[in-house]
Amino acid sequence: MPENEPILLTPGPLTTEPATRAAMLRDWGSWDAAFNRLTQSVCADLLAIAHGEDEFVCIPMQGSGTFSVEAALGTLVPRDGCVLVPVNGAYCTRIVRILERLGIAHVTLPLADDEPVTAAAIEAAFKEHAHITHVAQVHLETSAGLLNPLEAIAEVCARHDKRLIVDAMSSFGALPIDLRKGGIDALVSASGKCLEGVPGMGFVIARRALLETCEGRSPSLALDLHDQWVYMKKTSQWRFTPPTHVVAALREALDRFLKEGGRPARGARYAHNCATLVEGMAALGFVPFLPADVQAPVIVTFHAPNDPHWDFAAFYAAVREAGFILYPGKLTRLETFRVGCIGAIDEHDMRRAVAAIDTATKQLGIRVRAPELA
Amino acid sequence: MPENEPILLTPGPLTTEPATRAAMLRDWGSWDAAFNRLTQSVCADLLAIAHGEDEFVCIPMQGSGTFSVEAALGTLVPRDGCVLVPVNGAYCTRIVRILERLGIAHVTLPLADDEPVTAAAIEAAFKEHAHITHVAQVHLETSAGLLNPLEAIAEVCARHDKRLIVDAMSSFGALPIDLRKGGIDALVSASGKCLEGVPGMGFVIARRALLETCEGRSPSLALDLHDQWVYMKKTSQWRFTPPTHVVAALREALDRFLKEGGRPARGARYAHNCATLVEGMAALGFVPFLPADVQAPVIVTFHAPNDPHWDFAAFYAAVREAGFILYPGKLTRLETFRVGCIGAIDEHDMRRAVAAIDTATKQLGIRVRAPELA
Ligand SMILES: Cc1ncc(COP(=O)(O)O)c(C=O)c1O
Ligand SMILES: Cc1ncc(COP(=O)(O)O)c(C=O)c1O
Repeated sequence: MPENEPILLTPGPLTTEPATRAAMLRDWGSWDAAFNRLTQSVCADLLAIAHGEDEFVCIPMQGSGTFSVEAALGTLVPRDGCVLVPVNGAYCTRIVRILERLGIAHVTLPLADDEPVTAAAIEAAFKEHAHITHVAQVHLETSAGLLNPLEAIAEVCARHDKRLIVDAMSSFGALPIDLRKGGIDALVSASGKCLEGVPGMGFVIARRALLETCEGRSPSLALDLHDQWVYMKKTSQWRFTPPTHVVAALREALDRFLKEGGRPARGARYAHNCATLVEGMAALGFVPFLPADVQAPVIVTFHAPNDPHWDFAAFYAAVREAGFILYPGKLTRLETFRVGCIGAIDEHDMRRAVAAIDTATKQLGIRVRAPELA
Repeated sequence: MPENEPILLTPGPLTTEPATRAAMLRDWGSWDAAFNRLTQSVCADLLAIAHGEDEFVCIPMQGSGTFSVEAALGTLVPRDGCVLVPVNGAYCTRIVRILERLGIAHVTLPLADDEPVTAAAIEAAFKEHAHITHVAQVHLETSAGLLNPLEAIAEVCARHDKRLIVDAMSSFGALPIDLRKGGIDALVSASGKCLEGVPGMGFVIARRALLETCEGRSPSLALDLHDQWVYMKKTSQWRFTPPTHVVAALREALDRFLKEGGRPARGARYAHNCATLVEGMAALGFVPFLPADVQAPVIVTFHAPNDPHWDFAAFYAAVREAGFILYPGKLTRLETFRVGCIGAIDEHDMRRAVAAIDTATKQLGIRVRAPELA
């Protein structure tokens, strides 16, 4: 990597493999059969990662991940449906904002930023609000790095016959998700997260039998998942100009994903990155915000040092100078910062990042002490 | 260019400069100041191309061009507005479909595929339908390659105080558009057309005073232009993950655009490409669908040869084998095909393309005769 290119310790965009970027050195015709095969092979691989080959279809969608989340909600939820949204972070809140715009009724289940939802709480909400038809669940709340218990949630949704739409943006490809176990109706993710592609497209893996019932429902043409699906089935093309280079990069990224050993290997590398990071940071005195048992191995939120010299902007700049890009915290009530563990990086990079953080704090005269935990 | 890479004679994605693609070899942090400066400089240059610096703002939007068209309509038109849509091709029809989804009243002005709209027809529609508040006009109808008279349309809209939203997808950067002349309220285009970037983002250049009145109006969160604008003004970041590599490629493409001599030079090269193409094709017996005076120098629709051996798929394959990717026709009632004149190509490429078409027709035993014109 050139000298001036920092490593991104951010949850997407992230540091990709040079070969993934090199796949963008070619132009593709969007009408051409060679490109259409590329799209089809990408969708087939995405489907297989979640074991959805039998009952699901994968629909790619232009735009960032949020565009695919909105496409899934706007296409799959009937206007008279009611969606339960457990809220333990900013991406859950974003789902609520989308539902507000779409004019879809919803019930929120408010939780703390470090509190995973439980199947029992969801079941209680079903009992209290009998008109709930759907659940929109963020699998891995990237705001803090919190893991929600997807299997238990899917189980309770299946038992109560509620449709479950999962925002798996920052978990897909790294954490286990097995659609064969039932209970999940749609999964949403994007090119530039744990698959290590570049950003520019999302995708929805939706239960075919459900999607078939959704013709003409989307209030948006651009974000109409059903229309995108039907057109692609018929023509093997995207409805509107595809981000050809992003698709080509994702194809290359998937080849590398499969070569690495697929989801289990990808998840193991990230878990190792995360453990290396947390251990190294602990030695410096940095304390993670989340308890270890709900910390997903994708991004770690650390308490800012309890020191008057702390200033995130200066800290960010010093660590960047040393070659690493950190991420600001996304918690409203606590001063924190985040360090991602995903992308084409390994434990050596994590160790170097910790060393850079160590140097930066010393440079800036910051004394790292555990925050006063209330 | 590697042997196996055909030249794209398509209206986007198109053949880009190697340097534009090489700009994607680097990863960018979406929160990082270096990337935010990239976005800002791109937006400033886009604004300047249309001379909109004084009263307009440029808002980039993730997704293909259609996403930006829908964002403009959904954000800028009030729910009780009524939009006049002159229709002389598929992209005009797409605007109508978007308005239907948005539930916005509209009046269509049906025209033939080779018939530009006139200011007089628009004025007559204003008189007949007094409740029209907006006009949604496709500048260059890429379906046939037809140029609509934008200045006259803007003049009549200004005179009647109607808001004018222009889909300038395939004209922006090549054909003259001067916002200082008044009458236009929003322009929509995308990265992968005449600016010769790669596809993956669009943008809307909107009158600031108009956009300021549009808070909370968009029925979509992802496609809310006002929200995107306000957030970007405040943070200099995109609301949701930007297509970082596509933005970097557009920055490089704009550098090359400016170096070439800006809009006038770009337009002149395309005009020369187009003339070379039409002349060469005429020598082979191919007849353009459009009269020369309404033919825009971006894409040319040719009548398919009036010969029983004609088969577009076989013709496409033979020309592709020779290194050029053509585009199918988009007219419903006539058998045609299209050849684009845009992208990082020059008159030599056009001549080689004509030679490839000549060889292909001979190979396939197609006798090129003018169609029987009704
Ligand atoms: C859980 C989750 N949901 C949604 C998103 C939104 O994705 P995007 O920024 O690509 O729109 C993110 C982005 O990081 C995310 O982590
Ligand atoms: C005039 C016009 N409008 C809209 C579009 C749609 O753009 P996209 O395919 O990027 O969604 C195009 C695409 O070629 C176009 O030429």
